[in-house]
Amino acid sequence: ISDPRMQTVTLIPGDGIGPEISAAVVKIFESAKAPIRWEERNVTAIKGPGGKWMIPPDAKESMDRSKIGLKGPLKTPIAAGHPSMNLLLRKTFDLYANVRPCVSIEGYKTPYTDVDLVTIRENTEGEYSGIEHVIVDGVVQSIKLITENASRRIAEYAFEYARNNQRSSVTAVHKANIMRMSDGLFLRKCREVAENYKDIKFTEMYLDTVCLNMVQDPTQFDVLVMPNLYGDILSDLCAGLIGGLGVTPSGNIGANGVAIFESVHGTAPDIAGLDLANPTALLLSAVMMLRHMGLHEYASRIQTACFDTIRDKKVLTKDLGGNSKCSEFTSEICHRVQDLA
Amino acid sequence: ISDPRMQTVTLIPGDGIGPEISAAVVKIFESAKAPIRWEERNVTAIKGPGGKWMIPPDAKESMDRSKIGLKGPLKTPIAAGHPSMNLLLRKTFDLYANVRPCVSIEGYKTPYTDVDLVTIRENTEGEYSGIEHVIVDGVVQSIKLITENASRRIAEYAFEYARNNQRSSVTAVHKANIMRMSDGLFLRKCREVAENYKDIKFTEMYLDTVCLNMVQDPTQFDVLVMPNLYGDILSDLCAGLIGGLGVTPSGNIGANGVAIFESVHGTAPDIAGLDLANPTALLLSAVMMLRHMGLHEYASRIQTACFDTIRDKKVLTKDLGGNSKCSEFTSEICHRVQDLA
Ligand SMILES: CC(C)[C@H](C(=O)O)[C@@H](O)C(=O)O
Ligand SMILES: CC(C)[C@H](C(=O)O)[C@@H](O)C(=O)O
Repeated sequence: ISDPRMQTVTLIPGDGIGPEISAAVVKIFESAKAPIRWEERNVTAIKGPGGKWMIPPDAKESMDRSKIGLKGPLKTPIAAGHPSMNLLLRKTFDLYANVRPCVSIEGYKTPYTDVDLVTIRENTEGEYSGIEHVIVDGVVQSIKLITENASRRIAEYAFEYARNNQRSSVTAVHKANIMRMSDGLFLRKCREVAENYKDIKFTEMYLDTVCLNMVQDPTQFDVLVMPNLYGDILSDLCAGLIGGLGVTPSGNIGANGVAIFESVHGTAPDIAGLDLANPTALLLSAVMMLRHMGLHEYASRIQTACFDTIRDKKVLTKDLGGNSKCSEFTSEICHRVQDLA
Repeated sequence: ISDPRMQTVTLIPGDGIGPEISAAVVKIFESAKAPIRWEERNVTAIKGPGGKWMIPPDAKESMDRSKIGLKGPLKTPIAAGHPSMNLLLRKTFDLYANVRPCVSIEGYKTPYTDVDLVTIRENTEGEYSGIEHVIVDGVVQSIKLITENASRRIAEYAFEYARNNQRSSVTAVHKANIMRMSDGLFLRKCREVAENYKDIKFTEMYLDTVCLNMVQDPTQFDVLVMPNLYGDILSDLCAGLIGGLGVTPSGNIGANGVAIFESVHGTAPDIAGLDLANPTALLLSAVMMLRHMGLHEYASRIQTACFDTIRDKKVLTKDLGGNSKCSEFTSEICHRVQDLA
């Protein structure tokens, strides 16, 4: 009796609280009878031939096959020259779009209500090119690289996303008044792509103006698309509006359906292993994953169970304002998932 | 009977609502009997020898003499190749530090209370170098330039500012995890300078983390110092926390006491000349200017009169939630300034 919809997902539990919150997600998925077969892999970077850092072959092989990953937090290695694991993963699988839906969670109080926006960040170039030089002693330059192809690709992704998710507008965020050529190119591609999506409203806005307006009234925004660094900043800012990284899901999307969904909070080594962690961000990332895989009914059911649990305020982890353990919070969601079946 | 403290200030009324709000400030300063002699100048850029854009000689000459400017909003010229007036002024007078105190205003409701921080932005280099190239068709690079000298200078300014303004901590904002060499150099200079200010606590924080924490709890921040673009973003974000550009003062500081204080909102052409503008941002910038000039008693009196007027909510301009005209709001502040004498 194998479910024909059964699909394999590469599970990268990660470090610190990673294994606990991953176990929580697996348990909730079981309660939901989600047709997912997990293939657990460790991605700690190793030195490959020629001294190049790479992710272990069995992790790469699993991802190449499954195309879909779910990933907990990874600790930042301290070895000199060791790359950020997040950057290495984005690079290895050419995950060019970072997508972060930021939606206010009922019952979880922040200074804002009714936030409902999505930041879409170009994930492969811009200020993250890694090209830097010392010109003369005391004078350093970093190069921001913007290409036509990557700009068009991310713009197309943003408009497709908007269309497929019943969103009505896309705002390109830029500083083309200052970086006329690089941000100018990015903006031009956004404008060109917008021509093909007459059903979606297109606007342009300076990054500084977006930040100011965002903290004054985030409800005016819908889908935002932007170069790498601006996305790094705005996605975290927006996460702050709805309660922080502990409740914000994230997805990194590549070509041909490849994608890694992840919680973007840290490994919280101080509470690791103590059954105190909050699995919400990873769970909501897994919900994004289900939608990406076309498993919408499971996604909705799990999301509702999670939001209902938070709204009811009876069983919450400490960081959410409660006194419950990770396992209790998880069980509560499991029960609700089953009740919703 | 000339006041021995009488000093000349170059007044650049600017465009749109600029003349009205400048007139309001002049009136309030008169009521306060502030020892300021205004020298009004227009800074619309002209083409100098060799086709280089420059500010008119009589404005430059006035600033060179007075060393202190107060400036309303300037409209962005649309002529091709015309530089941003703000950038041209920063360059002409080497105004290397942009200083923006963000303090919650009692009675003016925003999602935050008790904000009390200062952003200090490096104003001369970084992403604003203006150096860009097309590498090949469809591939563009912009250069971010960070120098030891400019980094040390802004770090020193930040610590001096903290010490002189009874502030207890300075946070360096950076992305040295990504731009290891350029932001790395900036950060290293901040650390070195911090060594000479043992009375001020020094911390370092990633820009994305600052943005996230800022919208969650801005009260944790004090003085923040950062490269140009990060300052552009954070200063506007912080302005949003306390009510926007209509109530946020700004100062651009150069060497040897040279400084231009300015409101950073737009020219609001739609309400220009209608006696509806809000002079608060320019007035509070003028208050910063008085402090810069050592005229603290006048600064405090005018600031108190302005804040009291806003707190009492009886005479407010439209954007502040009232129904009064610019002239009525101005008169109210004038009366209070006199009562406080
Ligand atoms: C860990 C770091 C390299 C990364 C970034 O700067 O992109 C992080 O901030 C993120 O947003 O994923
Ligand atoms: C007008 C523009 C050039 C400027 C900038 O980007 O620096 C503005 O945003 C500012 O903060 O003064």
